[in-house]
Amino acid sequence: MKLEILESLRKEIGDQKVLTSDEVLDARRFDYSVPAHLKDWRGEELARPGVVVRPESTAEVQSIMRIATATKTPVVPYGLGSGVCGGILADPSVILVDLSNMNRIREIDETNLLASFDAGKQGLEAEEAVAAHGLTIGHWPQSIAVSTVGGWVATRASGQFSTAYGNIEDIIYSIEAVLPNGDIVQLGKAPRAAAGPDLRHLLMGAEGTMGLITGVTFALRRQAEKRAYSTYYTPSLSAGFEAQRAIVQSDWLPPVMRQYDATETSRNFRDYVAETANDRGLLLMIHEGPTARVEAELEAVDAIARSFGLEAAPKEIGPHWMENRNHVPTWQQLFEGGLIADTIEISAPWTRIEAIYDEAVASLRELDAVVGASAHSSHVYRTGINLYFTFVAKHEDSADMEGTYLDCWRRVMEATARNGGGVAHHHGAGRLRKRYLIHDLGENGVALLREIKNAIDPLGLLNPGNLIPDA
Amino acid sequence: MKLEILESLRKEIGDQKVLTSDEVLDARRFDYSVPAHLKDWRGEELARPGVVVRPESTAEVQSIMRIATATKTPVVPYGLGSGVCGGILADPSVILVDLSNMNRIREIDETNLLASFDAGKQGLEAEEAVAAHGLTIGHWPQSIAVSTVGGWVATRASGQFSTAYGNIEDIIYSIEAVLPNGDIVQLGKAPRAAAGPDLRHLLMGAEGTMGLITGVTFALRRQAEKRAYSTYYTPSLSAGFEAQRAIVQSDWLPPVMRQYDATETSRNFRDYVAETANDRGLLLMIHEGPTARVEAELEAVDAIARSFGLEAAPKEIGPHWMENRNHVPTWQQLFEGGLIADTIEISAPWTRIEAIYDEAVASLRELDAVVGASAHSSHVYRTGINLYFTFVAKHEDSADMEGTYLDCWRRVMEATARNGGGVAHHHGAGRLRKRYLIHDLGENGVALLREIKNAIDPLGLLNPGNLIPDA
Repeated sequence: MKLEILESLRKEIGDQKVLTSDEVLDARRFDYSVPAHLKDWRGEELARPGVVVRPESTAEVQSIMRIATATKTPVVPYGLGSGVCGGILADPSVILVDLSNMNRIREIDETNLLASFDAGKQGLEAEEAVAAHGLTIGHWPQSIAVSTVGGWVATRASGQFSTAYGNIEDIIYSIEAVLPNGDIVQLGKAPRAAAGPDLRHLLMGAEGTMGLITGVTFALRRQAEKRAYSTYYTPSLSAGFEAQRAIVQSDWLPPVMRQYDATETSRNFRDYVAETANDRGLLLMIHEGPTARVEAELEAVDAIARSFGLEAAPKEIGPHWMENRNHVPTWQQLFEGGLIADTIEISAPWTRIEAIYDEAVASLRELDAVVGASAHSSHVYRTGINLYFTFVAKHEDSADMEGTYLDCWRRVMEATARNGGGVAHHHGAGRLRKRYLIHDLGENGVALLREIKNAIDPLGLLNPGNLIPDA
Repeated sequence: MKLEILESLRKEIGDQKVLTSDEVLDARRFDYSVPAHLKDWRGEELARPGVVVRPESTAEVQSIMRIATATKTPVVPYGLGSGVCGGILADPSVILVDLSNMNRIREIDETNLLASFDAGKQGLEAEEAVAAHGLTIGHWPQSIAVSTVGGWVATRASGQFSTAYGNIEDIIYSIEAVLPNGDIVQLGKAPRAAAGPDLRHLLMGAEGTMGLITGVTFALRRQAEKRAYSTYYTPSLSAGFEAQRAIVQSDWLPPVMRQYDATETSRNFRDYVAETANDRGLLLMIHEGPTARVEAELEAVDAIARSFGLEAAPKEIGPHWMENRNHVPTWQQLFEGGLIADTIEISAPWTRIEAIYDEAVASLRELDAVVGASAHSSHVYRTGINLYFTFVAKHEDSADMEGTYLDCWRRVMEATARNGGGVAHHHGAGRLRKRYLIHDLGENGVALLREIKNAIDPLGLLNPGNLIPDA
C-alpha cells in the first residue's frame, strides 16, 4: 500500500483506526469459506490486505471511500468474517474496511417496530437489544453470533425462522450506504412505496460490490405469545415434501419447517430416533404466534401430516434442535480428521426438488473420496422449497482435498441447474459460486448485472473479483 | 414518424400491427390521469403518438425495440391505460407499444402454484383463469378489469387484499422483459435466491423506463377455505389506528383492513350508518384462511377492537363494500358537474400518520375551491399504514381547475414529506408525482436512479420524461 494512501487515511480517520500489523492483516485475509481455510491450514501463504481500516462512523467510511476513489484503490468491506462463499478475499492492493467497530444501536422504536443499527453490529447483540423490549428481528441465521446486521443485508441472508418471518429482504426497512462516488444514500423511507424501482435491492445481495452498507433499519415483530413444537417421521422424502407443500399451500405457516433425509436424521438425532427411525426421515416444525392460532395450526398440521403417512416422532427432538442448532465443528477440526466438508443450499419449485436431491446425492456418491452425501430442507415457500446439501470427503493427503471439494460443488450446482432449480438460496455467491450464477440469470441477466456494476462503480474498486461472473 | 421507421416496423411485425389511424392514435394519447383528461374534456389538443404498434410476441417486441434503438426513436409502453399518474404521455416522436394483444395464458401450474402470462393480459381475465383451478393471484387493484398484469408489475401496484397477501413485489415470481439493447432477460428462477442483487426490482416500479415487460409469472395461493367480515365504528381516527396496529402487531393478518374517516364513512356507507354513525369513522375487515384460523382471528380481533373502544357496526357493510368496491365515477362525470377530484396515496410509520392526516386535510380545506377533503387507510404493515386522501374541488370555470388540482397534490405531498411519510404508496410516480420523489429518495438516491437509468437506457429512449426527476 502506497505510503501516501496510508497517510491520507490516517489524516482523515485517525492513526489508531488505520492498521498494518501482521496480526491484524493476517486475521482478515479471508472469510469462513473452506478453500481459503484449507490452504491456510496446509500452511500455504495467503495474500493479506494492504491495510485494515476500522471506521467508527458513516462519515469516516465516506472519507475512506473518497480516498480509495481518488487513488483508484480497491476496497473490500469486512464484517465478522463468517461468510462461507469467499465474498472476502484480500490482497496487498486492497483497503479492507472492517466495519465491526461501527456497532452502535441507533434507535429502537417500540411503536413503529423499527430498530436501526450501525452495519457492523453483531447479530446476536442486535437481537438481544430488541428482545429487551419484548421484540424480535425474527432473523436467526446459524451465524447469528458471528455475523453482522450489515452482512445479513449484503449477502441476502436467511434465518432459521424464515418460513413465517421472511428472509432479510422481508425484514429490511431501510439501508444507509456509501457509494463509490462518496455519496451517502438512505434507501427506504416508508412502510411501503411505489416510488420507482426499489433501490434497496441494488445493495441487498451485492456482497460489497455496489456500495458499503453503513446502517440498517429492520421492521421488527413482537415476540410470539406461544411457541410449540411438532415432529414427525417421514416414510419417504416425497411424503415429507408433500406434507410440507400441503401445509404452506393451506396457508399455515410454521416459522421453522425442517425435513431431514434418513442419513441426516440418524446423524443429527441419533439419541432420539436410533431405535425407531428405521431409515425414515424427520420433519421438525416450530409453531409461533397468538396461542389460539398456534393451537389451530397444531391441529391442522397434525391432520395434514397423518394424511401423508407421517407418524409422530419423539417430542424432545424440537427442543434439542433449538438448543444445539448453531453448534457445528470447525473446518480445522475436520481437516485434522482427514475430512473436508461443506453445505450447499439451493431452492426449486416443488416438482423439481426430488430430482435435484436424487441427482445431486447420486453424483456426489460417485466420487470415491465422498463418505457422506445428504440433505435437509429448511425454508419453505408456496412455490417450492430449499435443500441444504452436506457432503463430506476423506483424503489421506490433504493436497487432494481442494480438487474433490470443488468437484462436489460443481456436481450439486449442475444437478440443480439441470433440473430447473436456483443455484443459491441464501449463502450468496462470493468467489466460490459466481461461475454458476449464469444458470439463474442467463447470459443477458449477467450482462445486466455487469452494466449496473459499471454504472455504480465505474472504476471497479468495490470488492473486485467478487460475485459478478467474469466476462 | 419517419416513413423509414414505419416501413421497418411493418416489415418486422406486419402491416396490421403498425397503426396510424386517427382513432387508434387518439385513444392512446394518455393514461387515466386527471390533468390529461381535463385538457381533453376542455377540448384542448393533446399530442398523439407517432405510431401505435401492437406486437403479439416477445420476439416482436424485441424487433420493435431494436428498430427504436437503431433509429434513436422514443418508446412508450402501453397496457390498458388505467394508470393515474401520467405514466403514459405520447408525442409524435414516439412509438407507442400497445401490449394488450400480448394476452396469452402461458402456463398455470397447480402444484407449484405458478401462473405465467403475457404482460398484456387483462388482470381480471388472469385472475379468472387461475380461479378456475381453485387458485387466486391474490392481487385485487380497483383497476383489475382495466389494467394488465404487466402494468401491475411496471407500477409496483397493490391490491385491496394486500395486508395478508402482499403487494405485487411479494406476488411476483419472475419477469420477462426486453431491454433497450434488444436483449431478453428472464429474471427470477427459484422460490428464493441469494444470487446477487434481485434484478427484478430494476423493472418493478420502473414504469417503462428501464425495459419493456413482456411476461410475468406470479406465485399463486389456493383460494381460502373461509371468508368472514367484521366491521366496527371507530370513536376517533386515533382509536382506529391503534386497534389496527394492535391487530397486525399481534400477528393477526386480515387481508383487508380499511379505516374510513367520518367524512368518508357518511359518504360511502350512508345507507347503513346514517342514523348511528354520529360522526364516527368505520373499520372494515375481511378475514380469510383455514376456517379454524379465521375463527380464532375473529375472536382475537373483536377483543382488540373493543379494548380500544370500537363498537360493532352493521354486518351488511362488508359485503356491500365487496360488491361495490370497484365502482367509481369517471373524471368526465365529475367535470360535467363542475368538479375536479383525485385520490392520493401515501404511507408512514404509525407515529406519523395522524399528523399527516391532520395537516393534509387542513391544508386542502384552506383552498376556497375545495369542497371535500377526506381519507381512508387500506394497506397495513407492522411498521405503519397507508392513507388514501380524496379531494374534490368545485369551479365555475373549468379553466381554473388544473391550478387547484396541482395545488391539492402539492399540499398532500408536502404535508406527507414534512411529517416523515413516504410520498407514494402504490400508484407510482408517473409525470405527476415525479417532482416529489426527492422527498423519499433524497438527492443522492435520485442521482443513483439516474445512473441506473443511463446504464440500462443510455440513449434515453424508454418512456422519456416519466418517473425520474429531472436533473
